[in-house]
Amino acid sequence: MAAEPLLEQLIEALRCLPGVGPKSAQRMALHLLERDREGGRQLSATLASAMERIGRCRQCRNLTEQELCRICANSQRDASLLCVVESPSDVLAIEQATGYQGRYFVLMGRLSPLDGVGPAELGLDDLARRMEQDPPSEIIIATNPTVEGEATAYYLQRMALKQGINVSRIAHGVPLGGELEYTDQSTIAHAFASRLAVKL
Amino acid sequence: MAAEPLLEQLIEALRCLPGVGPKSAQRMALHLLERDREGGRQLSATLASAMERIGRCRQCRNLTEQELCRICANSQRDASLLCVVESPSDVLAIEQATGYQGRYFVLMGRLSPLDGVGPAELGLDDLARRMEQDPPSEIIIATNPTVEGEATAYYLQRMALKQGINVSRIAHGVPLGGELEYTDQSTIAHAFASRLAVKL
Repeated sequence: MAAEPLLEQLIEALRCLPGVGPKSAQRMALHLLERDREGGRQLSATLASAMERIGRCRQCRNLTEQELCRICANSQRDASLLCVVESPSDVLAIEQATGYQGRYFVLMGRLSPLDGVGPAELGLDDLARRMEQDPPSEIIIATNPTVEGEATAYYLQRMALKQGINVSRIAHGVPLGGELEYTDQSTIAHAFASRLAVKL
Repeated sequence: MAAEPLLEQLIEALRCLPGVGPKSAQRMALHLLERDREGGRQLSATLASAMERIGRCRQCRNLTEQELCRICANSQRDASLLCVVESPSDVLAIEQATGYQGRYFVLMGRLSPLDGVGPAELGLDDLARRMEQDPPSEIIIATNPTVEGEATAYYLQRMALKQGINVSRIAHGVPLGGELEYTDQSTIAHAFASRLAVKL
């Protein structure tokens, strides 16, 4: 390998990006150097400022460079609805797909005792305090349907019901555009068990 | 879209990387912010320094942060062999695949009069001077087998032969591991025309 030291460093540094292996990192480095130095400079500056300034929203724990994120700071949003998700990307996914106008609480993880992630790490103390002081009328649990996500959902459910708050969970079942033939057995079993009555 | 302004800027800035669309850019931004801030800071610093400091080798035009690139500065390399390629990634590909111990000349493009890329833009004046003052014993042309690459190869060939320098071109034909059935017609035609005599 005869690459220049700084070029090699750049290729190596680009590999911290998810899904970027040695070949793509090399392509990215050469692309920036040969064709888009301005873009590279811009990326460097934005990265530095984002890594420094983006922290957590004081209220919902989502990523933001302000004290309160855009959604929590927006008084137009319905404070009586609270959707609990695992990560900031879940917030973006729900915002992009639905017309949901309530607020969020971002766990930044899921309960996983073996990895040392308990209720405190997920900010559930804050959430409990919020439920007590300013209880929403409904909590919508949207954790992922994995074993740990389910455990987290169950914990949240108990917390909310203890305070007498209505709890709902987003529906799990056969995805739209999917085919029964190619859907896994547990999803079909769940969809079957959760069937909805059809009324005229 | 309810992302925070700085997060959106970061997602947008990441899209200057080749092959990165909105979804991957979002995944990269969230990954760095949630799990690898140190990597993000490192990437930002390396990018800034690379964009600023990496220029062209005075002799072969390859990318380097020094005045002479590693290969030109290495007195162990055979100065009598000169391989002409289109881009720095071609140098890396040849270095990684072969045991070639000669020098390179990197055109940083190919002749393309319609796009305003003529001999001057490719540094062919420098190359002509080098051929005159310190002629290598062989010039190996390794431009890409595209229409413009072929035109560039033809131009280089004439330049070298005028100076009485031996010229060779890397072989084009059916790739190893490929199958005749799935090889395109022009490659097969070329491979057929360039067949090599087999001797005992």
